[in-house]
Amino acid sequence: MISDLDAAGSAALRELSPADAVERLNLIAADEAAKTLAALPFAQAVSILDQPELADAAAIVTAMPEALAGRLLEAVADDRAADIVGGLEPDVAARLIQRVGAASRSSIETLLAYPAGTAGSIMTTEYVAVPSTFTVGATLDYVRRVEKSRETIYAIYVLDPGNGQLLQVVTLRRLIMGDPSAPILSLAAAPAVVTVGPLVAREDVARLIRRHDLLALPVVDDAQRMLGIVTVDDVIDAVIAEQTEDVHKFGGLEALDRPYMQISFFGMIRKRAGWLCVLFLSEMLTASAMQTFSDELAKAVVLTLFIPLIMSSGGNSGSQATSLLIRSLALNEIRLRDWWRVALRELPTGVVLGVILGVIGIARVTAWQMLGLFDYGPHWGLIATTVGASLVGIVTFGSLVGSMLPFALKSLRFDPASASAPFVATLVDVSGLVIYFSIALIFLKGTLL
Amino acid sequence: MISDLDAAGSAALRELSPADAVERLNLIAADEAAKTLAALPFAQAVSILDQPELADAAAIVTAMPEALAGRLLEAVADDRAADIVGGLEPDVAARLIQRVGAASRSSIETLLAYPAGTAGSIMTTEYVAVPSTFTVGATLDYVRRVEKSRETIYAIYVLDPGNGQLLQVVTLRRLIMGDPSAPILSLAAAPAVVTVGPLVAREDVARLIRRHDLLALPVVDDAQRMLGIVTVDDVIDAVIAEQTEDVHKFGGLEALDRPYMQISFFGMIRKRAGWLCVLFLSEMLTASAMQTFSDELAKAVVLTLFIPLIMSSGGNSGSQATSLLIRSLALNEIRLRDWWRVALRELPTGVVLGVILGVIGIARVTAWQMLGLFDYGPHWGLIATTVGASLVGIVTFGSLVGSMLPFALKSLRFDPASASAPFVATLVDVSGLVIYFSIALIFLKGTLL
Repeated sequence: MISDLDAAGSAALRELSPADAVERLNLIAADEAAKTLAALPFAQAVSILDQPELADAAAIVTAMPEALAGRLLEAVADDRAADIVGGLEPDVAARLIQRVGAASRSSIETLLAYPAGTAGSIMTTEYVAVPSTFTVGATLDYVRRVEKSRETIYAIYVLDPGNGQLLQVVTLRRLIMGDPSAPILSLAAAPAVVTVGPLVAREDVARLIRRHDLLALPVVDDAQRMLGIVTVDDVIDAVIAEQTEDVHKFGGLEALDRPYMQISFFGMIRKRAGWLCVLFLSEMLTASAMQTFSDELAKAVVLTLFIPLIMSSGGNSGSQATSLLIRSLALNEIRLRDWWRVALRELPTGVVLGVILGVIGIARVTAWQMLGLFDYGPHWGLIATTVGASLVGIVTFGSLVGSMLPFALKSLRFDPASASAPFVATLVDVSGLVIYFSIALIFLKGTLL
Repeated sequence: MISDLDAAGSAALRELSPADAVERLNLIAADEAAKTLAALPFAQAVSILDQPELADAAAIVTAMPEALAGRLLEAVADDRAADIVGGLEPDVAARLIQRVGAASRSSIETLLAYPAGTAGSIMTTEYVAVPSTFTVGATLDYVRRVEKSRETIYAIYVLDPGNGQLLQVVTLRRLIMGDPSAPILSLAAAPAVVTVGPLVAREDVARLIRRHDLLALPVVDDAQRMLGIVTVDDVIDAVIAEQTEDVHKFGGLEALDRPYMQISFFGMIRKRAGWLCVLFLSEMLTASAMQTFSDELAKAVVLTLFIPLIMSSGGNSGSQATSLLIRSLALNEIRLRDWWRVALRELPTGVVLGVILGVIGIARVTAWQMLGLFDYGPHWGLIATTVGASLVGIVTFGSLVGSMLPFALKSLRFDPASASAPFVATLVDVSGLVIYFSIALIFLKGTLL
């Protein structure tokens, strides 16, 4: 039964582009959205469900009559259908997948088998392929015939008719320029087709598509037989999703898998509490380090005044270096074996930056003392020197640690982007305290200490 | 004169794809690269120079004979030529641009006039447009004729023959499916063409291309006349460049405009020292705050032991919240006016996270005291309470400040992504100290203080 309300809702949607319709549907509950979609013309419902931006598509499909849900899943692109089915409750997924025709069902099941974030998980099986025995004219006729059911026809894949191996790729652009009676292989452009395996990471797929300016990248098995293609628009989505993950990780939390406002309160706590506790436990070492120096602290309380200032400077220079190296490694500008080149750059950079801050720090202590704003005692000159020298040491150390951390993670086969700003700050804080108190012992032994 | 060495170098390049050739050329000096390019067949030199990944293309072009440089600039895509000319010394640019034919010269000069990071600066003027009076067959003939000189032919723009306004867009896909005698407008798909103005930011262009799954987006002037198109591969480049900028900014430095290893030593210092000094000067407030509490510090040195631990926790929770909100605002998941919704979520989230850390903190003090690892004195229970309560306050405050900072920047018309982790940490540090000492005064008045 379609109520008046749903009919009114769907009438309002009917005029909108799929992207705009998705924005409307994202504002209402899943069961309302399901009713609205059901009341739309079938083709329009398909094009809306096809948008990856439609939040909670799984819940919407679950709330629909099963027959309609099955028909819709069959009609959307296979890679999108696999995304939706992957988000369903297992029992609902098992029931709905039986409603989908055998061809679509088998490709959805194939796609679901690849781990998230791989080429296999974002590819589509709806591409155009012809045997190498075809002429240009025959290929164009074939493209016209199958166009409706393919996600893209801008790249046509030429296969060996014997073993099904991918031989070449011909762009639609070249196809329409070609002589109809010429063999299709005469239009092949590149010396060799660029391909990836199904388990290649999506960011590497993005890099290849960008590097070779492709509209689609074929995914092949070990025997060079085609499994599917990743299209350029899927890659943009993947790049943006990767970017969100990286910023979340750099901010020091587990990447959220859904928008801020849609994650549950306890889901949010889970994503943040884990790293926060790890950082807190590591930072506890600062309390231990300070306990070790508690005799010195009691003698020279004035030293404590500069602890936050000096420690944060080490963390800041470390965070700068980490952000630089995370991106350079992600863009393959720098390789793992170049770590020593980077260390040789960061060392003098850190020293210069440390000297700049050190001079400001000394000027600050001197100015406050001279202007009578605060009395650091008779040894204020030595205190200023301690602060300045510590800043040089800690900023240099921060730059080195911050730049080497992404390399260390990469060599341990972790994602270099897991190096977060808070993590670097924590690493630098503990050693920063030790540097500060050691330098204080050198300069203040016999006077304050 | 082409030496044997250059001939050998270019022979080695001749077999490679443009992307691979670029990688080789990026490893050698600009004048060597210029000689190698000059020794290659012209078409191959063009396709290599066309790659945006070729570093220092401006220096390579400068090192070439002027006649050849002019021919190459004329042959590469106009948007790429504008990029290269934009990187030349002004006098070299003025001389070379005179070597380029009038049509290309005028579009290069137009493109150069748009500010970096806008749709105008990344668009190409090499698109296909036909008047709305054309039939499908006439359009296809025209496309075949001009194909060689256009960056993309996958979108064909239909213009009003009277005033030149953009009326519709027809995809090549639909064009080859159409009846040759039908009018071209019969193939138009969308209710309205999606367009942008030339000054729209590249990330908004990326968002539109992604939202509407386009292969190219037309750029129009105020009178809806076409200026150019932004293609999907330019958008991927723009998204990745934006991502690098955002990570650099979040790390607390000015975004580098070239790869880590290619920036000069003093260029690097400049990009990092500015923010480092701003952060250092702001963090000096911590020293001032501690000076205010110096009497309390002298009475209860034990309080200083926990300063780094407590302060860093505020910075960490702030950094988490900032990274979440930067992305949500960038992806338009959340709008400026939703700030209070976010504040209402961050408040309880911060309290729960603070309680978790507070409990761990109290357990730490208690354990060390009980196990005899450190003696916090007779009032250790009150000290533990102070640490626990401060953590709740500071983590909550950090989450709030960290989440509101991107909104504040956006409402001041700054990029929300300028909110860096070190900046948030600095903001939270100063107020964190005040919170800590105020709570200490409440709990320890009459005993330690």
